[in-house]
Amino acid sequence: MSNNVNFKTLKIDKPLKLDCGQTINNFNLAYETYGVLNEKKDNAILVFHALTGDQFVSGINPITKKDGWWSYAVGSGKAIDTDKYFVICANVIGGCMGSFGPRDINPETNKIYGTNFPVITINDMVNAQFNLLDFFNIKKLFAVMGGSMGGMQVLQFVSNFPDMAKVAIPIACTSSHSAQNIAFNELGRQSIMADTNWASGDYSNQSKNPNKGLSVARMAAHITYLSKNGLQEKFGRKLQERDDLKFSFDADFQIESYLRYQGSVFVDRFDANSYLYITRAMDYFDLTKEHGGNLSKAFEKTKTKFLIISFTSDWLYPTSENKEIVIALNAIGADVGFVEIESDKGHDSFLLKVPKFLDTLKGFIDTSYFKN
Amino acid sequence: MSNNVNFKTLKIDKPLKLDCGQTINNFNLAYETYGVLNEKKDNAILVFHALTGDQFVSGINPITKKDGWWSYAVGSGKAIDTDKYFVICANVIGGCMGSFGPRDINPETNKIYGTNFPVITINDMVNAQFNLLDFFNIKKLFAVMGGSMGGMQVLQFVSNFPDMAKVAIPIACTSSHSAQNIAFNELGRQSIMADTNWASGDYSNQSKNPNKGLSVARMAAHITYLSKNGLQEKFGRKLQERDDLKFSFDADFQIESYLRYQGSVFVDRFDANSYLYITRAMDYFDLTKEHGGNLSKAFEKTKTKFLIISFTSDWLYPTSENKEIVIALNAIGADVGFVEIESDKGHDSFLLKVPKFLDTLKGFIDTSYFKN
Repeated sequence: MSNNVNFKTLKIDKPLKLDCGQTINNFNLAYETYGVLNEKKDNAILVFHALTGDQFVSGINPITKKDGWWSYAVGSGKAIDTDKYFVICANVIGGCMGSFGPRDINPETNKIYGTNFPVITINDMVNAQFNLLDFFNIKKLFAVMGGSMGGMQVLQFVSNFPDMAKVAIPIACTSSHSAQNIAFNELGRQSIMADTNWASGDYSNQSKNPNKGLSVARMAAHITYLSKNGLQEKFGRKLQERDDLKFSFDADFQIESYLRYQGSVFVDRFDANSYLYITRAMDYFDLTKEHGGNLSKAFEKTKTKFLIISFTSDWLYPTSENKEIVIALNAIGADVGFVEIESDKGHDSFLLKVPKFLDTLKGFIDTSYFKN
Repeated sequence: MSNNVNFKTLKIDKPLKLDCGQTINNFNLAYETYGVLNEKKDNAILVFHALTGDQFVSGINPITKKDGWWSYAVGSGKAIDTDKYFVICANVIGGCMGSFGPRDINPETNKIYGTNFPVITINDMVNAQFNLLDFFNIKKLFAVMGGSMGGMQVLQFVSNFPDMAKVAIPIACTSSHSAQNIAFNELGRQSIMADTNWASGDYSNQSKNPNKGLSVARMAAHITYLSKNGLQEKFGRKLQERDDLKFSFDADFQIESYLRYQGSVFVDRFDANSYLYITRAMDYFDLTKEHGGNLSKAFEKTKTKFLIISFTSDWLYPTSENKEIVIALNAIGADVGFVEIESDKGHDSFLLKVPKFLDTLKGFIDTSYFKN
């Protein structure tokens, strides 16, 4: 993967104690901003990215040369309107887009961390990003939001910092990873580790990367991001540039070709060890257990206004799991709205052009900012 | 994988023209029987196995030393009662339990076929197994049945041989593989092919097998065999022999340990190339397309009595896909019953102790045999 981009980076010299027990010092957080922070500094939105996302929310991503991952939602005149709001997004720690991650040099050994990088958690990610508020001199964020793992960070943020965001929008997420979620992540990890080029995580010292394993991991994950019906409508049994079956193991079907493509482009932008670390953080996420089995306790100190959003065809983080968050919030009389958006695009809906979702987001954000 | 078992084998010297265009001669079909064929030869049941199944339906499987794959359903006094019926099951061609498969020697080259083995189809599998009727001198089977890929073979059998079975029971299957089905199979194939030990299918000439890739393929498939709720109830976030998270990539969670185990035992009994060939056959299956887009036409010549069975939590071959078969049969006034069995065990339900399923099976079989 390409590494020739100078990431905008915040150097953090405040020690951060990680959940694993280690303390990190002098670590980097790569970030991007969109829009302008107003004088009152009350228009800042902290966006958290998902597993394979990064800080390049909107505009052109300098690594992929494609649109940022949330370009449908973030931009001038869009749901998260950069003419009105100051959007901040940082690469999570453990990532591979400039933030402290397994590709960094371990100062103690002068070698690349690899799997000597500490296992991090969603809590660690959020605590690391909290430093952005100091940096921008923001006393209170207008909003925190994000989908999938980004939504988990939203929940963790409000739990950790109950007074620091006026509005919170966790989208298509869960308060704890289910057995099936863990199973799919473990599948991805085993796929990477099965690649002999992975070399127990020490592949940076060789010319070969575990691209085949990482590609299969991405294919597996990609299937879970789409709905069965959505796949059927988009691909069905359509053949790939041929009139009939070829009776071979080439990609006869479009869906095969599509998955192979998704795998192949992914390895150009993502680091295999980061994939291991970030999926691990997701699997460890359990806000309910963190609060003694009572999810409501995670939010009992907050006055933050919540909007929970789920999608009908999302089977990775289905509506039922999003509703558990809604129930926990209602059980303590929190200010909480909930919408389930009709979409056949599966978990990926939050990244796509789903008008009802984007309209809901825009309406909620603007109303919360301008009418309160 | 072990190969020291002498499989019971039917040597077929009648040429078989495959869908790919090739004709095979003098090929083997490994089979097992249970119970006794009566004098009238009207009590024979041909059972078709699923992707990773084999001819060892009941009793102890000589390879795995565990119970046969359908031991809950087949045996003395069971739903498919071997005191009453003569059960035949053959390893599919393309398989690795003694039937003609990619581990065989290609007589033209005197080398192991590997990926020079012809790509076979469900139709080819069924036509190969039809030879069993001649061998046992059976004019008409009492029943054909099977789950998953076994169910596809049931449908294909009745379509090919409309007068040759009194009763047909396709369980938890589909009339054509969906895009999501193909996607998961392609994931498995790519996982095997990503293993450098696969060596383009030529691994038989080396001491190493693509066990890591095959293991990951099995893990992926295994997740699809279980329901999200079933996984949650059985494993949830339970830890594996530890009090707390270890902050490592070991199997912290029971679900991780379980999947790793499933992968590791699978490679002892299954051949990676067979996995490629059989998944390909499943992906190619499209009985609707085979009949010009009208599934009813597949069955218009038959008087066979059908019972279609699906399971509520099966998301691999959901009830909706099973119902398409029911609709196609009803549309030509066929004799068809349909039951959806309540179960949280997912697609695997047909292999497990699901009392309502086994009771339904037993009642339908005995009534159809003894009261008509």
